[in-house]
Amino acid sequence: MFLHDNEQIDDLHYKGLKLIQKAGSFRFGIDAVLLANFAKTSKASKIVDLGTGTGIIAVLLAGKTEAAHITGVEILPEMAEMAKRSILLNNLDSRVDILNMDLKASSEFLGYEYADMVVANPPYIDSGCGLLNNSGGKAVARHEILCTLDDVVLAASNLLKNKGQLNMVHIPERLVDVICAMRKYHLEPKLMQLVYPGEGKSPNLVMIRGIKSGNKQLKVLEPLYIYNCDGSYSQKYLQTVGEV
Amino acid sequence: MFLHDNEQIDDLHYKGLKLIQKAGSFRFGIDAVLLANFAKTSKASKIVDLGTGTGIIAVLLAGKTEAAHITGVEILPEMAEMAKRSILLNNLDSRVDILNMDLKASSEFLGYEYADMVVANPPYIDSGCGLLNNSGGKAVARHEILCTLDDVVLAASNLLKNKGQLNMVHIPERLVDVICAMRKYHLEPKLMQLVYPGEGKSPNLVMIRGIKSGNKQLKVLEPLYIYNCDGSYSQKYLQTVGEV
Repeated sequence: MFLHDNEQIDDLHYKGLKLIQKAGSFRFGIDAVLLANFAKTSKASKIVDLGTGTGIIAVLLAGKTEAAHITGVEILPEMAEMAKRSILLNNLDSRVDILNMDLKASSEFLGYEYADMVVANPPYIDSGCGLLNNSGGKAVARHEILCTLDDVVLAASNLLKNKGQLNMVHIPERLVDVICAMRKYHLEPKLMQLVYPGEGKSPNLVMIRGIKSGNKQLKVLEPLYIYNCDGSYSQKYLQTVGEV
Repeated sequence: MFLHDNEQIDDLHYKGLKLIQKAGSFRFGIDAVLLANFAKTSKASKIVDLGTGTGIIAVLLAGKTEAAHITGVEILPEMAEMAKRSILLNNLDSRVDILNMDLKASSEFLGYEYADMVVANPPYIDSGCGLLNNSGGKAVARHEILCTLDDVVLAASNLLKNKGQLNMVHIPERLVDVICAMRKYHLEPKLMQLVYPGEGKSPNLVMIRGIKSGNKQLKVLEPLYIYNCDGSYSQKYLQTVGEV
C-alpha cells in the first residue's frame, strides 16, 4: 500500500515512528536526528521544516513535541509525495502537512509571521563548489542548486513571528556564512552546539538557533561527541536522541 | 631600576621571559597566553599587537616566533610606559616597540598594509553593557570604552597586507559580533578554536584567525580544555603553552 518500487520502510527507533526511503537515493543522517533533538526544546505550536526531503525531521518533531501543526516544505514532487506517504504511515496526517513547493514561496503561501519555529537542514555545499552528484534528489539535498543558504534564512525570517526561532544544522566550514546570513535577516544567533565525531577531532556539524529580533549574545554549549573511541555511539549522543 | 611603586616582576615561565605588572590593576590572563600560542604558528615578519596593555603578548611572541619586528600599540600612557620597561627588562628593544597611541591611528602611523600579522586581545564587554569597573586600566582593558570591536578589526584590516592574518581572542558570547566584523572588513575567518574550562562545560574563550581577502571556509579545531577534573592544568593546555 505505502511502498513504491525501490523503496523501503525504516524504523526510526523512537516511539514506533517509521520513514519511507528510497534505496540508493538521499537517506536521512545523524544531522537530521540531531537537529530534531536540538529543536525539540521549544514549545512551538506551529513549525515549518524548510526542505523536508523524506520528512524525517517533521516526523521526529511530531513525536518529540506537542506542536499543534508541522508543515514540511519540499520542492521535488517525487520526494514530497514519498514524505506524504510517511506521514500517513505514521498516522500523523492530522498534525503534519507536506507542501510540494519552492521554500522561497512558502511565506507567501503560509503567511508572513505564521510560525513559532522553523527548522532547516539545508544543502551544505555552496553553489558552484564541489563535484556535483548527478542523482537528482541527492544532488538537490546536498548542493545549493535550487536554494542558497540566504534563501533558506530569508524564508525562515519571513515565516517567523517576532521572537520565533530558526533551528538549523550545517557544516562548520560554513559557520561564517550561517552566522552572517542569520544576522542579516534579523535572526540573531543565540544558541550553538558543535558536533564532533570523537575526542581530539574537528567538528563536522554545527547546530545553531537564531531568534527573530533577539538580543545579541550567543550561548555556546559543551561539545557533543557522537562516537566513543571504540566506534560505538557515545552515551551523550544516545541520551540526546532519546534511545537511552 | 625597572620597578615603580606598587609594581612587581612576574616570571612568564617561558625562555626566562619576565613581565612587569601592577599589583591590583589589570594583569594578564590565560587568554593572552593562549592567543600568543594560537598566533605563533605564523611565519609573520612584522607583527602588530593592538591594545598591548602590559605588553604580555608582544613579549611572548618575541620569544615564540622569529618575527623581525613586533609593535605593541597602547593608548594609556602609564601602561605603555610600563610595557616599555618590560621590553627593556627582557632585552627585546631591538625587536619590540611600544607605541603610546590610539589604535585607531595606528595604520596611519605605521602605514597601510604594513603588517603580516595583527594580534588583539580586545576589551570583551560591549560598550554600554555591564557594570563598569572604576579602576582606569582595568576598565579600559575589559570594557569597550576607548575602542569598540569594530575599531579593532578595522584597524587590523588597514594594517594588514593582502593575505595577512588577524589573530584574536574574545568571549563566545560575542562570537557573532567578531565573525560579522571580520567579514565586514575583509578579514575572512579561517581558523577557530573554542576554549573550555573543563569537560561538559560551555566554552569561555574563543580564538579566531581572519585572513585578509581570504577565501570562505572556516576550519574549527578540536576543543581546548584548560583544566582536568581535579583542577590541575590539562596536558593539552600545558603542551599548548609550551611548559611541557
